[in-house]
Amino acid sequence: MTDKIGVGMLGYSFMGRAHSYAFKNMPHFFSPPPAIPELVSIYGRNVSNVKLAAENYGFRRFTTDWRNIISDGDVHIVDNCLPNYMHHKVSIEAIEHGKHVLCEKPLGMNAAEAKEMWETAKKGKVKAMVAFNYRFVPAVILARELVKTGKLGRIYHFRARYLQQWLIDPNFPLVWRLDKDKAGTGPIGDLGSHIIDLAHFILGDIRSVYAVIKNFIDERPLPYNSTKMGKVTVEDAFVAVVEFYQGAIGTLEASRFATGRMNYNNFEINGENGSIEFNLERMNELKYFIKEGDEKTHGWSNILVTEKVHPYIAKYWPSGHILGWDHTFINEVYHLIDAIVDEKDIGPLGATFEDGYRNNVILDALVESATEGKKVNIHY
Amino acid sequence: MTDKIGVGMLGYSFMGRAHSYAFKNMPHFFSPPPAIPELVSIYGRNVSNVKLAAENYGFRRFTTDWRNIISDGDVHIVDNCLPNYMHHKVSIEAIEHGKHVLCEKPLGMNAAEAKEMWETAKKGKVKAMVAFNYRFVPAVILARELVKTGKLGRIYHFRARYLQQWLIDPNFPLVWRLDKDKAGTGPIGDLGSHIIDLAHFILGDIRSVYAVIKNFIDERPLPYNSTKMGKVTVEDAFVAVVEFYQGAIGTLEASRFATGRMNYNNFEINGENGSIEFNLERMNELKYFIKEGDEKTHGWSNILVTEKVHPYIAKYWPSGHILGWDHTFINEVYHLIDAIVDEKDIGPLGATFEDGYRNNVILDALVESATEGKKVNIHY
Amino acid sequence: MTDKIGVGMLGYSFMGRAHSYAFKNMPHFFSPPPAIPELVSIYGRNVSNVKLAAENYGFRRFTTDWRNIISDGDVHIVDNCLPNYMHHKVSIEAIEHGKHVLCEKPLGMNAAEAKEMWETAKKGKVKAMVAFNYRFVPAVILARELVKTGKLGRIYHFRARYLQQWLIDPNFPLVWRLDKDKAGTGPIGDLGSHIIDLAHFILGDIRSVYAVIKNFIDERPLPYNSTKMGKVTVEDAFVAVVEFYQGAIGTLEASRFATGRMNYNNFEINGENGSIEFNLERMNELKYFIKEGDEKTHGWSNILVTEKVHPYIAKYWPSGHILGWDHTFINEVYHLIDAIVDEKDIGPLGATFEDGYRNNVILDALVESATEGKKVNIHY
Amino acid sequence: MTDKIGVGMLGYSFMGRAHSYAFKNMPHFFSPPPAIPELVSIYGRNVSNVKLAAENYGFRRFTTDWRNIISDGDVHIVDNCLPNYMHHKVSIEAIEHGKHVLCEKPLGMNAAEAKEMWETAKKGKVKAMVAFNYRFVPAVILARELVKTGKLGRIYHFRARYLQQWLIDPNFPLVWRLDKDKAGTGPIGDLGSHIIDLAHFILGDIRSVYAVIKNFIDERPLPYNSTKMGKVTVEDAFVAVVEFYQGAIGTLEASRFATGRMNYNNFEINGENGSIEFNLERMNELKYFIKEGDEKTHGWSNILVTEKVHPYIAKYWPSGHILGWDHTFINEVYHLIDAIVDEKDIGPLGATFEDGYRNNVILDALVESATEGKKVNIHY
Repeated sequence: MTDKIGVGMLGYSFMGRAHSYAFKNMPHFFSPPPAIPELVSIYGRNVSNVKLAAENYGFRRFTTDWRNIISDGDVHIVDNCLPNYMHHKVSIEAIEHGKHVLCEKPLGMNAAEAKEMWETAKKGKVKAMVAFNYRFVPAVILARELVKTGKLGRIYHFRARYLQQWLIDPNFPLVWRLDKDKAGTGPIGDLGSHIIDLAHFILGDIRSVYAVIKNFIDERPLPYNSTKMGKVTVEDAFVAVVEFYQGAIGTLEASRFATGRMNYNNFEINGENGSIEFNLERMNELKYFIKEGDEKTHGWSNILVTEKVHPYIAKYWPSGHILGWDHTFINEVYHLIDAIVDEKDIGPLGATFEDGYRNNVILDALVESATEGKKVNIHY
Repeated sequence: MTDKIGVGMLGYSFMGRAHSYAFKNMPHFFSPPPAIPELVSIYGRNVSNVKLAAENYGFRRFTTDWRNIISDGDVHIVDNCLPNYMHHKVSIEAIEHGKHVLCEKPLGMNAAEAKEMWETAKKGKVKAMVAFNYRFVPAVILARELVKTGKLGRIYHFRARYLQQWLIDPNFPLVWRLDKDKAGTGPIGDLGSHIIDLAHFILGDIRSVYAVIKNFIDERPLPYNSTKMGKVTVEDAFVAVVEFYQGAIGTLEASRFATGRMNYNNFEINGENGSIEFNLERMNELKYFIKEGDEKTHGWSNILVTEKVHPYIAKYWPSGHILGWDHTFINEVYHLIDAIVDEKDIGPLGATFEDGYRNNVILDALVESATEGKKVNIHY
Repeated sequence: MTDKIGVGMLGYSFMGRAHSYAFKNMPHFFSPPPAIPELVSIYGRNVSNVKLAAENYGFRRFTTDWRNIISDGDVHIVDNCLPNYMHHKVSIEAIEHGKHVLCEKPLGMNAAEAKEMWETAKKGKVKAMVAFNYRFVPAVILARELVKTGKLGRIYHFRARYLQQWLIDPNFPLVWRLDKDKAGTGPIGDLGSHIIDLAHFILGDIRSVYAVIKNFIDERPLPYNSTKMGKVTVEDAFVAVVEFYQGAIGTLEASRFATGRMNYNNFEINGENGSIEFNLERMNELKYFIKEGDEKTHGWSNILVTEKVHPYIAKYWPSGHILGWDHTFINEVYHLIDAIVDEKDIGPLGATFEDGYRNNVILDALVESATEGKKVNIHY
Repeated sequence: MTDKIGVGMLGYSFMGRAHSYAFKNMPHFFSPPPAIPELVSIYGRNVSNVKLAAENYGFRRFTTDWRNIISDGDVHIVDNCLPNYMHHKVSIEAIEHGKHVLCEKPLGMNAAEAKEMWETAKKGKVKAMVAFNYRFVPAVILARELVKTGKLGRIYHFRARYLQQWLIDPNFPLVWRLDKDKAGTGPIGDLGSHIIDLAHFILGDIRSVYAVIKNFIDERPLPYNSTKMGKVTVEDAFVAVVEFYQGAIGTLEASRFATGRMNYNNFEINGENGSIEFNLERMNELKYFIKEGDEKTHGWSNILVTEKVHPYIAKYWPSGHILGWDHTFINEVYHLIDAIVDEKDIGPLGATFEDGYRNNVILDALVESATEGKKVNIHY
């Protein structure tokens, strides 16, 4: 019989639900699995909600005190899906209790927090990973491979934009994500962190940034009292130009005011010999242009990344049967558990806490640049 | 606590794996679920394979005798994912044992078999459903709604093609799907049954068919002895023209020789006021043209069917987070269990055994037309 | 100085305007041109319209008697853009007067007419060409080349549909195209002739057809008296299955009731090694799938057929500057004049009167099949 | 008879050829035309080339001295298609000779030059227009209309990039466009001027810019002696962030190193109620998202801007017959001649010399920002 590995989940809503799904389904696809995850315990503040989550997700027990998860002897992996301001404290404590940690992004509220987390992880003997799940999209891994193997040649341009539309309505309430104290930043941390991680993952470190941020709607109704208005304290959107150490130039942008863009995490890379483009709304596809073979037939190819030659796909379904957004987390927890069981490194495929720190450095730089109206050179 | 409902699975490979996934994950998304499926027992012929499947999928026990599933007192739903020639016998026996049945498509090897199965189901007190899972794609349900509510007006044209490419290589072995005794037909039953079901589901009954079938490669290496060749006894592709009782005309086509088409289940409907197009390779999208509003802005709209106003989507993730092919089965088993628990009808959303029979009638007619070189009028 | 070649135009509306444009602009792009067309004379029934056309298009003179064109000593090329029922008589007379003839499609009202035209052309010493202008779309020439050079390998499937929407409105008047006496057929001859010509051009002769035709709207207001209704005497749409001598099977379809399809002349070809797809609404593009190179990067490529390596493009603009629909006629008249001046054959790139005849044979067969409800085998 | 208007053309290659085509064809489509252009005289430095051009384009005479054009009594419109450094001097002289002027973009080598040209135009009694032809793409006019009429609501985001690939090859020679003395700038003036004009045209004035420029290849072979290398003195690419007076933020980018992008002039605008996207490589289409009607059917619509309700289209062909890149110039010269004959204003549809000046101001600001590494606020 395959070994079991115990999972403690912090949070049951959006990310908690996605991660629980992933642990539960990993052995369904990765056969034989490195270990079979056991859904041991789940934490949430609301007792009836967390009880229902435990039942529906399949956790053995639940708790309303997160320290119970960290001290639970059956738990080997602590999965930190708490809000950003709880990442630092809880993850460090978990590592110090000898638990492996999977932590949601952005790693810290700022680079200083993230650096402490990274340092704690270095001292610990456990695996620590940041949940940058888009690294585990098969099309993204393919994109990275095309760049890293030199297939595209020297890279000249990178442009990424992560666009959503859910704040367009001025009556949308002032949720915690619009509160600087809880979220740190707006789309910079929420969406920008993803595209910055992809830039790092595929192309490498950023050398400078210049950013503009903007607020379109200053006040919104309070969540629990819609007759009262409160102030939006994070940016509504940012645009930036960047330079990479490797020589490319590019643009970054994130907004939650882009009508018609539901979850448009889009990047394009132009190299000397070819180009690629990705869009999360069509995450099973990769657009690819290569200057090879008969020039008459050069074109932008739409690769359906659902074939058994593609990353992870042999574990799933036959040709042309697409994966969903939540499958990225299955690949992610497989990667983590495989690293734990077989004592492998998290990186470079998985995001280490060092990657999380370098990500936070750029987030800080974007804020600094936009606030002070000047270019910021990056020193990690 | 929510009630449990026991599931017995027949088969562990392609469809068995997909259906098991669905039962396991249904309560993860449909909260509260009508009942929580318990993965009781799974059947397969190969003992080590079925043992491993039980472990990875999460079944309590396994067996190499399918009658053990049917007679298992903990099993309430028998899920028949066996090859086509086992649908008739096993499903009838299961119904007669008082089990609810979910049976893979096509229902029978021919209309006669399917009719007996339908009649058995009518006499039983259980729910019987054919696993036409593409009915549970949110975009397909939306397509149907646009037709059924009259939004498109009178329908003039229907065209569907289900194209794959996996038989292009002449050295691909003579698997059971190429053997008439086991599969009945080639792409007619395998792929054609799906698009015919969608035609029925969305537009209604077919009145006549004229079909041409074709074999491109007559002999292939035997699966277990590639130095010997065996004869392909099913068609490699078919094309057909059809008339609908409702007045539309159309074309149907299926092939496993369509290079570049991985899983291209594509249909287009043109109505008086608008049109729709669907492609399974982009199953989270529906193309839609409607003659409404300012004529200057008429165009083919690409609806990302991932919003909470769309069928089933509120159960899953926020805006723009796409579903995978396997999620269709989660919706399907939810539909079945909801019908069982709340004593609802399977149809018209789910495919009843009557639907399965009507489907088989068309499959038979396609074969008859192609074989005899004449138009066949349909009488159900 | 380059020689001049005199052009006499029959008709000034849709096709007359397009062809006049082509003759006028050919030397603008094909430099040096084989000869410079002189717009000598234009014929039309309405004197004020034809006078205005002459002025705006740049013809030296105009006439309301088509025989004046044929007997005009300055005219070397007679361009027959008259309605279908005038193709036979006028083209034959022009050839007999020693004029080169460019005749609009379909060549004859039926195969018998077309055969006489072909025979007249064979006896004459002039060039006779059918105006199947879509042969002169660069993307179509590229498609043909990919098939003819064997790049796609053995061809298994062909499917074409020419869809428009302009008859959707039941109050659209009973124009001559809906009158069997003047038009011969409906979309069979109007649109079907184009896709059949492309099938011949790219893939070769058709061996059998089975067709269904349909009328959706039986009566329409008269063009000059909308209070009175008249009977539609041609089909509104057809669908057909076809077999090719070369071994492929396919579908053909044309309709003017396909809401949202403006000018959707679309074909797809699947071969052993690759596939192509074309859509006239994006006539500067060709979709292409080829099983070459790393399987990981196989995909449907969108070739922008606007590069100087592509057919005719070096004559036009730099990279990525697209051509319009009317440019196809510039290529076409260049081909004709080049054949005249340099005494080259019209075929296989241009459509000869033999091609026009073979086209009419299929049109007749579609009508016969649909009328009699049986498959028709083709004998040319 | 319609009046004639004499045209004198400066330049016969790329733009000279495109503009000549436009004047020749305008009356073919705009019937009756405001006046019929007469191609009077064409200027070029190379006598045999300009002679051939005159013959093939249809000019009555040619000259190798541009002053002959300006002083030609039959010439009413001087069309300045000379290199950038000749715009200022020649256009001013032409206006002072009482000729209407159509001048290629960018108007001046810098804002100072452009301002003088604008002031000269203000004093003259003639029409002066900058040849920003993309204003005359029907889809662009539609885009502008959707913004200007408030259909999209308040605008939040603008992003534009004009990408080409023709400098990728390091052996591509050091043509005049790579020489600062003749071209002024690289893609900033060549491509950037177009997207900046579209930003002005559709959205309004820019308030600030921050730009980064980059050289990827420093030296290239000399055009007439490929064994010697010369220095590239203009930028190879730029990226910028911009703020608009109207409140939106955005990004601008242009490069000739974007492999796979042939002529990718692409912009996207996100407003409160909807969004639009345009791509010149598919210039007959406009992508459009609008929050109207049933939310279930919201999607990105692909408008085929080829219908008679669309700008200029009624002058051309029936539904779905696409225009080419060169047709934009036909609309442009129609606009100019119509303004001349009917004494209308050039703006706001056509680009006035004031528009040309404002465009040059931004070009200068991009250079200044990139050179000095700081944000530049715009004061016109």
